[in-house]
This record gives sequence, C-alpha cells and structure tokens, in this order.
Amino acid sequence: MKLVILGADGYLGWPTAMYMSARGHDVIAVDNGIKRRMEAELGVEPLVAVAPLAERAKCWNELTRSTIKVVEGDIATDPTLLAAICSKERPEAFVHYAEQPSAPYSMRGLDECLLTHHNNVDGTLNLMFAVHDYVPDAHIVKLGTMGEYGTPNIDIEEGWLNVSHNGRTDRMLYPKKPHSFYHLTKVHDSHNLEFGCRMWKMRVTDLNQGVVYGFDTEETLLDPILNTSFHYDDVFGTVLNRFVVQALCGYPLSVYGKGGQTRGYLNIKDTMRCVELALLNPAERGEFRVFNQFTEQFSVQDLAELVQRAAAMKGLQIYLGYVENPRNEMENHYYNAVHTGLVDLGLEPHLLTEEVVGAMLDVASRHRERIRESTIPPRTTWERGAAERLAPSLAAEIETIEARALHGNGVAAPTLRK
Amino acid sequence: MKLVILGADGYLGWPTAMYMSARGHDVIAVDNGIKRRMEAELGVEPLVAVAPLAERAKCWNELTRSTIKVVEGDIATDPTLLAAICSKERPEAFVHYAEQPSAPYSMRGLDECLLTHHNNVDGTLNLMFAVHDYVPDAHIVKLGTMGEYGTPNIDIEEGWLNVSHNGRTDRMLYPKKPHSFYHLTKVHDSHNLEFGCRMWKMRVTDLNQGVVYGFDTEETLLDPILNTSFHYDDVFGTVLNRFVVQALCGYPLSVYGKGGQTRGYLNIKDTMRCVELALLNPAERGEFRVFNQFTEQFSVQDLAELVQRAAAMKGLQIYLGYVENPRNEMENHYYNAVHTGLVDLGLEPHLLTEEVVGAMLDVASRHRERIRESTIPPRTTWERGAAERLAPSLAAEIETIEARALHGNGVAAPTLRK
Repeated sequence: MKLVILGADGYLGWPTAMYMSARGHDVIAVDNGIKRRMEAELGVEPLVAVAPLAERAKCWNELTRSTIKVVEGDIATDPTLLAAICSKERPEAFVHYAEQPSAPYSMRGLDECLLTHHNNVDGTLNLMFAVHDYVPDAHIVKLGTMGEYGTPNIDIEEGWLNVSHNGRTDRMLYPKKPHSFYHLTKVHDSHNLEFGCRMWKMRVTDLNQGVVYGFDTEETLLDPILNTSFHYDDVFGTVLNRFVVQALCGYPLSVYGKGGQTRGYLNIKDTMRCVELALLNPAERGEFRVFNQFTEQFSVQDLAELVQRAAAMKGLQIYLGYVENPRNEMENHYYNAVHTGLVDLGLEPHLLTEEVVGAMLDVASRHRERIRESTIPPRTTWERGAAERLAPSLAAEIETIEARALHGNGVAAPTLRK
Repeated sequence: MKLVILGADGYLGWPTAMYMSARGHDVIAVDNGIKRRMEAELGVEPLVAVAPLAERAKCWNELTRSTIKVVEGDIATDPTLLAAICSKERPEAFVHYAEQPSAPYSMRGLDECLLTHHNNVDGTLNLMFAVHDYVPDAHIVKLGTMGEYGTPNIDIEEGWLNVSHNGRTDRMLYPKKPHSFYHLTKVHDSHNLEFGCRMWKMRVTDLNQGVVYGFDTEETLLDPILNTSFHYDDVFGTVLNRFVVQALCGYPLSVYGKGGQTRGYLNIKDTMRCVELALLNPAERGEFRVFNQFTEQFSVQDLAELVQRAAAMKGLQIYLGYVENPRNEMENHYYNAVHTGLVDLGLEPHLLTEEVVGAMLDVASRHRERIRESTIPPRTTWERGAAERLAPSLAAEIETIEARALHGNGVAAPTLRK
C-alpha cells in the first residue's frame, strides 16, 4: 500500500519506515527535525550516532533496491504540506508518530507545555483536514499512549467503556486522567480524532502504546547507518532503556519513589508488527478504533530487579537506588489493562527476559564511550512553573499595563493591543 | 474579593463585570478584542450597538462610583500579561470567559479550527501557569459548556461519574463526545484544568453552561452604553435569540432538521448568579469541581413553539420553517442532565415563559432598523474542509517538495525546513 509515515526520523518512525518498505509497501517518510533540535537544546544525544534521515533513506534504498521517499517539512505549522502530499500522492494510509514524545519535556515549563500542544495537536488537526479534503477513505493509524488512561481503580479497556447508569447504558470513550501535559495532548488528539470519525466518517486506529524498549529490529541490524535513536537520558529515555545504561555504568538504578508504578511495556519489534497489523486490517469508515498496544505489565521495581538479575549474569553487581519521585503519580495502585485487540489480529509477543536485557547490555557496552552520565538523573520536576523565565520581562510588563491601560479612574485607552 | 474577569468584553463577561462590581467586589476586566475582530471579518453585528470596553467601564465607574479596571491584552499569546496581573494585583479569583465561543465559527475550516484551539487552549494554559506561579491559592471559575457532554444515552452527571466495572469502582471524569471543534477545545481545557488540580493543587470550578438567552441584567438597564452584545446571526447567535429576531422580522423560525435536539438553557440573569455563587463558595485546593449551569431543558421544537405563542400574544402570526440541519448531530435522542449543584448553593432560576420571550421581542422591536436579515440563515456546514483555501498554494507546494526534497532515488537534501 502507499503509506505516509509522519515523524519518520524518530525512535519508532524510522524502524517502521524500513519495516513497511521491506514488506513491499510504498513509503513516504515525513519529519520536521524537531526532536534533533530539542536534543541539541537539552544537551542530550542518542546512545548510538544517528545519521540524518535523508542519509538513512539513501542507505536503505541502495541496500534493498526499495524506495523510501523523504519529505522534510513541518505538518504542525504548514498545513499545505500535507495537502500537497495527499493531493499528489493519494496515500492509502498514514502512520502518525509526529509528536513531541517526552513527558518530562512537556513539564519543564510553559514554553515546553505550549510547544507540545502546538506540535502535537495542530499536526493532528492538519492531518485530519488534509485527509478529509483529499483522501477521505485513507486510514489514519495514530500513535497514542497507555498514559492517556492514567491509573484508574478499574480495569482499563481498549478506548471504549460500556457504561450502565441509572438503568440505561451507553458505549462511551474511556475516561482519561493522564499524568503530564504530553499525555494530555494525546488525550486531546484522541477526542479530536473520534470527532473526525463521527462527523466526517474518517477511518482511525488509535494505538495506545505502552512503554517501548529495545534497540534493534530486523532492519536496523542491516547496517550501522540504519540504527534508530535509542535514548537513555532523563528527557527522552524510557525507564528500561535508562536502567540498562545505568547498570552498564555501574550506577544504582534510579527507581522513582516507591517503584510500585505499573505500566504496560513492549519490545520495539512488537511495535513494528502492531502497526503493520493495524494497517493490514484497517478501521471501518466512521470507526474510531482503539487498541492497547503492549504485551506485558511491570512495575518499576519489577524492571529494576530484572535488570539487576540480567547484569548479575554478566558479572555486574548492581544496586537499586531509590530517588525522590520527580513526577506526581501514584506509587502503589491497581493496574489491569485489556490488550487483546492486536493479539486477536495475530500479534505474537516478544516477551521481556533476562536474555533480552542482556542483549541490550551488550549493545550499550559497545557504545560505552558515548554515554554522557550527567544526562541520566532527572532534571525536571512536575512542580515547575514559568515564573523564572518570565521574571526578566515582568516589571516592564507591569509598567506597560499601568501606563497604557490605566488612566484616572482605571479606564483604558481605547486602542487594542495587537 | 479581588477578581479578574477574562473575556470581559463579551456577551457574558461584561454583565458579569458589572454584576460583581455592583456587589462590592474589586474587578479587573481583561479582553483581547478578538470577538469584535471576528464580527468585522464575518460582517455581523450585535443587535444593539456596543460601546468599546473602556467606554463602558468609564460609564459604569462614573455612574456607580465603583472601579472596574480595564486591561486590554491577549492572554492566549502573551503569557507575561497574566503573570504581571497576578504578580501586581494578587487576585483571589478569576472568571475565565476568554474563549472563542462559536461552534459554527470553529467549523468553518482549518484556520478557524486552529484559531479556536490556540485562543482557547493556550489562554487556559497561560492562566494555569500564572496562577501556579504567583497566586496558587486563587480560585479559577472557568466557563465550560454542556456541549462538552454531547448527547449520551445515559443521564449526564455534573462532571464526574461513579463507574462500576468488573466488580471494582472509581470516580471518573464524565466521558465527553462534543459536537464541534469549539466544544472540543472546552473538553481539552477541562482535562488540562483537572490535571492542574491533581498536580498543582489548584482550585477550579468548571461551569458547564447551557445555552444562554436574554438581553438584560439589572446592571445593563442602568444606561444604554452598558448594553451587552446580543447576537442573532448564524455564527454567534444562540437559538432562542435567533428565533426572537426571526419572529420580529416575520420570518419562519429556522428549525434545524427534526428539531428534537434537546439542550439545557438559562436566562442571562441566572448566569450572573451562578458565577457569583461559585465565587462565594470556592472549590477546595486540589478540587476540580464541575457544575452543570442551566435551569431548564428544551428541544429546538419546544423553543420554536414557545416563540410562536409569544409572538401570537403580540398579534404576530409566525410559522416554523424546517431547514436542512447544517450540523451533524442527533435530532431525536435521550437527554437528562443533573443540575442540582448550583441550586444547592442557592440559585433561584428565572424560568422561560411567553412573557420572557415577549419582553425579548419588545427589545428587538426597538432595534428593528439594525437587523441585518442576511446574517440569520446558516452559512457554515459541519462538512467543510480546508481544500478551497489551500488550493491556490497547492501546486507551488507540490513543486517545492519535489524540487527540494526528492533527488534521484527519492532522498532529500539534508537541510531542514524552518
């Protein structure tokens, strides 16, 4: 099928582009490079050097005689970009990864909160209008997150909940209580997309993905230039990836708080297969279909102990180091999430074992010299506001308001501020 | 109390500013003038001429020896504005009306959809950060809408729903299925604010308001310059206000579709009292409190027949005119929404009668010469996309993408688009 991958330069976008290209699909890879700019701004780097998207595509195309077509542009700020792609290429499906993916980044302050909203929500809205206008039958496969649900005290269903109340029933969107502004933007996207299905008869599959771990897919192993951007830092690194790098450096594994925080997890290889299964079995016109995309549940404590055991098998003695939780979240809670939809379509999970962690330790070990240890401890707390950044301009703004707007009895000059 | 009213130039913002000022509160009135610019763009006007905010405040202050302080500025694009107001004035409460309020406007196309998202969601985020940083104990009274709920097949509760599922229970946010991008932005705000309560211990009251009707409050009647901006057009006019003006012009009342669409309604006088009750009885720290703010439920058909009867009492014979529904919504549905929270705090509703409609007809009649009849029929359908607007730049964009990004085997030049 003809397929557009949005956010194709990312940790999952690039492996997905290759995976689908390897299986004979016609792939157009779109990215705005925002993640690389954020990395530079924050002083973090992936564990393994990552070639520019265009070079990776060139390598892939030469190696496999396939054609991944690269388009560099910003779907969030340039609505014409997606309109042009839709009008010219008539894609049959979209895989939409093009979102700022870090919860800690979104909680750094007001600027980052707003950037996350604009990049994520505007991009999805631009996609909805382009599909509605040019390729209304196309299937949007949108990456959501299990973090949209938060940690409810009842079982988590796949996006929808059958509710009985006062003797009547309805099938309703599952209520959401996420833990960061990043996760909130995914909740906003879900509501906007459900509306698109209801109003415009769009086809949407929302993949509420768990936490992904792992370096390698079949395709990344073909050439070092095809690596994906594995992060171990406090901003973009997911918990298992961070623990592996900490273990390798001989650090205590930084368990946040009590460590009872339980989430769904999956191997990057299973992400590839889940996206493929969603694409091969599209949602119906008008259907907002949700799958919970993970294979196993673990608490942070479970993962730390697993990494400890895997490290011990390599002769490394590692301790667990409990640190104050920079996040505001429950540390002991019920968690039971349904995840049968993708298994029903044919997913055969790669489960997480000491051997899988051991292989991750081996890869990390080969790139030991690139690890920037200072970027591992958490630098963002959930309490931070914007005051510090706004302070320099505050006195001037107060003066301006007073001078411009408040005369005599408090009545403003009639000119409007632009 | 010291009180900031955001969106103080609007249909409800201005009467609320006077109402609270008349009751001895210290009012700071903030507006960015966006509604007036939208009116100019769309060629619509309120029924009665509306003086600039500063002039209205001057008139009020001279008449009553009170002080409504006006600040003209944009809380959505200038985060320093709210930081400065909070830091300098230390307000105890905010009434947040500062949102683009029209569902049809938000559905006109992509530009209007994005403007609605930016104005509404960004403004609320800026407010959250300013309160968190400078006045964390302040109470935010946020105007939401009953339209956030949509038309579920079960009773609508006040913001929260006790859910039993597989033998376990939780108190969850009531699931939302709104009918327009405007209503979606209010859903996004609700999620963001609930998060602020949970993470930052904010105090928030979310007033999910029904459809407001009426011209006059005790304070608007004191002087013609204190009028509020009553709209009867297809973009900003709510249904009863539109029917009153249609009746006066001798038009058939334009019932959309079957007319079974049922919603909650309230008199503008009750809006004033509801906001006051919320302010006098603030939410607790950390509490996201929701009230459904309306007094009676009516179907569109009910309202049309009511206006017909009221017109007949004035000797006007009016017909109902069924028109194709420009919206995509259920026209026959269950609707039963709880609205006891504000009554429990002391609300005594002004109910809708033939006499109330008769009084509205009298006011409209006094301004008959200002009615622009061409602005009454619906001009926006829910099906519209962005293609028409993007068309002129489309060919150029396709060329640019091809020229810039696709060389030889489809690999892009490595420069990033800004």
